[in-house]
Amino acid sequence: MQEKISSQIALPVEIDLQSYPLFRQCEGVFVSALQEAARERRFEKGQVVFLHGDGVECFYIIRHGWVKLYRETLDGTQAVVDIFTTGHMFGETAIFEDGMYPYSAEAVEDVQVIALPIDLLKNEIKANNKLALDMLCSMARYRRRQDREIEHRSLQNASQRIGCFLLRLLNQSEDGAAHIHLPYDKMLVASRLGMQPETFSRALSRLRDKTGIRIKGSTVEIDSPSQLTDYSCMACSSEYPCKDILSGK
Amino acid sequence: MQEKISSQIALPVEIDLQSYPLFRQCEGVFVSALQEAARERRFEKGQVVFLHGDGVECFYIIRHGWVKLYRETLDGTQAVVDIFTTGHMFGETAIFEDGMYPYSAEAVEDVQVIALPIDLLKNEIKANNKLALDMLCSMARYRRRQDREIEHRSLQNASQRIGCFLLRLLNQSEDGAAHIHLPYDKMLVASRLGMQPETFSRALSRLRDKTGIRIKGSTVEIDSPSQLTDYSCMACSSEYPCKDILSGK
Repeated sequence: MQEKISSQIALPVEIDLQSYPLFRQCEGVFVSALQEAARERRFEKGQVVFLHGDGVECFYIIRHGWVKLYRETLDGTQAVVDIFTTGHMFGETAIFEDGMYPYSAEAVEDVQVIALPIDLLKNEIKANNKLALDMLCSMARYRRRQDREIEHRSLQNASQRIGCFLLRLLNQSEDGAAHIHLPYDKMLVASRLGMQPETFSRALSRLRDKTGIRIKGSTVEIDSPSQLTDYSCMACSSEYPCKDILSGK
Repeated sequence: MQEKISSQIALPVEIDLQSYPLFRQCEGVFVSALQEAARERRFEKGQVVFLHGDGVECFYIIRHGWVKLYRETLDGTQAVVDIFTTGHMFGETAIFEDGMYPYSAEAVEDVQVIALPIDLLKNEIKANNKLALDMLCSMARYRRRQDREIEHRSLQNASQRIGCFLLRLLNQSEDGAAHIHLPYDKMLVASRLGMQPETFSRALSRLRDKTGIRIKGSTVEIDSPSQLTDYSCMACSSEYPCKDILSGK
């Protein structure tokens, strides 16, 4: 019988931190300390990883699955800040937020994450200017990505915006066919893109018809990125492959 | 006769750099070097300060007037990235952009700016970890602001979004009456907020009716920030006064 997935499991875990751009230039001592402190945690669909305003203890790297970052407005509506999948880091900007998480995080489906103590990162950023500079580059990428997102809300139609969302999930250094795995709940993608569910469904069908991509359940199959770039990137001020793609890492 | 405003004028200028959060913790030697190199430049309405992709030489602080940051999409449409006024800094993130400006900048009306050599900033960030950390805090504020902007495009109506834009221009530590000066061309605010001109005009009238603010040409008069916060901040996940306001500085 499969062991029940639980957030209580927090096992030591092997992780190649230096494969992440943020840690590439870091010293061995810091990386070893981080690796030693790394713990695998699992969350079931719908479980909260942390809440907006919680005291910050860890930042996270996603090993498998999708995580939703969200906030709630004063009148009780949920606003999806972002959705992230395998390889992305979240919670690390809490360093600059008076010790509290600036959003809530929830498992969108069963997820495995690596939890890393934020104090180690915080202290190392203060001591190691190279890491501070790498973090600045990472923040600049995120800023570009957000600038593009705001631009797209004005200039792209809904289908083009879904195309851009899919392109961001591709390995943009590869040019061939690819399968893109979306969260099972596609309405979450709609929320992330600020679309009503019915708008999203219509726009996704239109994207399929315009580009020839195939949609099978929660998997999108493309023969070549150019199917999407020809359609989406024309109405964007960045060129493909675009600099914004590594933003989450 | 008044001297013709020209971008050719580049006079040495007195500026209290340490009044800017980014430079508050900086050493005397660096600040003196920056102050010595500071030049006042004036641009007439419509003049380009720099173009997207130009090699980076300077970053800028606005002394007076409004500056528009924009990009152009492949199909030729202009996307307004942001509009900034007195006290705001722009161009400094070009440090992280392979030596090229990530957007174009244009004077929206006659403006005075302080031009500062970006190499001085770049070298100091590498040498001075405190400055790198302050820059990280500044980037984190901008990131929060962009996150809010994306959230608002989903959750706020057009009038609430204009209300939020006006609140960002206030000194949020003061609670009384205030006059807010908009660019003469209000359609620029519409572009910044991703609205069609007619939507913007209707939404501004509605905001006036809902909140009792007064609009006289390009000046907005309010009796108290609560006129706007009661209406706009209810549909936002931040509270007023909000942490995002210093983002441009």
